[in-house]
Amino acid sequence: VALSTIDRSAVERLHLAYVDAIDDDRLEEWPGLFTAECSYRIASRENVRRGLPLAVMRCDSRDMLHDRVHAIRTTAFYVNRTVRHLGGMPDVRTAEGGDGLAVRASFAVYESLPRAATTLLCVGVYDDVVVEDPDDGELRFRQRHCTYDGDLVVDSIVYPI
Amino acid sequence: VALSTIDRSAVERLHLAYVDAIDDDRLEEWPGLFTAECSYRIASRENVRRGLPLAVMRCDSRDMLHDRVHAIRTTAFYVNRTVRHLGGMPDVRTAEGGDGLAVRASFAVYESLPRAATTLLCVGVYDDVVVEDPDDGELRFRQRHCTYDGDLVVDSIVYPI
Amino acid sequence: VALSTIDRSAVERLHLAYVDAIDDDRLEEWPGLFTAECSYRIASRENVRRGLPLAVMRCDSRDMLHDRVHAIRTTAFYVNRTVRHLGGMPDVRTAEGGDGLAVRASFAVYESLPRAATTLLCVGVYDDVVVEDPDDGELRFRQRHCTYDGDLVVDSIVYPI
Repeated sequence: VALSTIDRSAVERLHLAYVDAIDDDRLEEWPGLFTAECSYRIASRENVRRGLPLAVMRCDSRDMLHDRVHAIRTTAFYVNRTVRHLGGMPDVRTAEGGDGLAVRASFAVYESLPRAATTLLCVGVYDDVVVEDPDDGELRFRQRHCTYDGDLVVDSIVYPI
Repeated sequence: VALSTIDRSAVERLHLAYVDAIDDDRLEEWPGLFTAECSYRIASRENVRRGLPLAVMRCDSRDMLHDRVHAIRTTAFYVNRTVRHLGGMPDVRTAEGGDGLAVRASFAVYESLPRAATTLLCVGVYDDVVVEDPDDGELRFRQRHCTYDGDLVVDSIVYPI
Repeated sequence: VALSTIDRSAVERLHLAYVDAIDDDRLEEWPGLFTAECSYRIASRENVRRGLPLAVMRCDSRDMLHDRVHAIRTTAFYVNRTVRHLGGMPDVRTAEGGDGLAVRASFAVYESLPRAATTLLCVGVYDDVVVEDPDDGELRFRQRHCTYDGDLVVDSIVYPI
């Protein structure tokens, strides 16, 4: 299937599956939305602008994403937090080189703690490369770079953005 | 018309009409977006997770929704508040049993009070069942279950979520 | 090309280009999304409701929008702020008179300042008229009226909403 036939709604479904896995606390499904070799990164807008290699989170393969989920599941956090993503409409473009689709979308992530009001955790933008996985033809993230605005207490990043 | 022909944009229009009726303070139009027999519920994520029947608001028919609007219109509130919904993209699936569409969408609701900054009221997820109303073929909610994250002062729920 | 053939996704792309130009700090591209004669306005919901002509920002041509960008670029602000828009799905309707499309969409704008958490600047609704520009056939805003809820410190409106 040619990449040009990937429709926008397939990309939207991938975005929705991503949000659903995290917000519904089915984190184990999250790595499966990425290709085996992939690039997942969370970095601040300021660092991205300066071209600094500093990232709050960086995973270069699906296995590393699985490790991350394992770490989250086995860490004793003081509080049970839940997160909620609100994503803007995806801006779907052909990726440079014609291999896959470049997709941008704004996001806001909210956090809720027990017996507390919900608060804004961060806002930012996703820079994705979405491809049809040669393994099975499924649409997956080969890249999801999360760039957040403002300053963020690094400890507060527990779940994926 | 077969349900399979309900397109995604028709569901989006229903979601937009819902938000518009509430945010534009045309609450009287809100019950008309539901079927005569319906289930509207606002409950906390924690209670839903525990399977508890506690709900902040629960209406089982369009008539009850009308009653709710009447109650809002005739109650003297201390302040005039306005609300603003931001909804995520709807995730449209075939409902179990094939009758209607199951639709999920994240939401954020903001509240504004006179001479005050806008604040976040709550975030959460809608679990809808959308059907073509046999009465006239219009697309309507047979179910809208609003599950909000975090803790919410129950008194603060004045308008529908 | 008849206006009826403007599809929803073309309107979405215009909305995305608007957000992208502002949030990516490519403000110089922002006026090009409007027709030469246009109406851009930022006003409070309360003033709009009362029919008051007060607006926080009002531009009646693309040239005035360019002037606004020039003013922003040459003003020395105390802090470097960045903004992030989250837009709801656009509600696309035929404009009265059949000339162009009337489009409504909810928005939330977040602001980030150096060494500070991100905060909500405002929420509200866009009332747009989108037309195919007779100059080159491109889809542009002939009107974008931004109505924000709540009270807003006028000084805080630096970038376009």
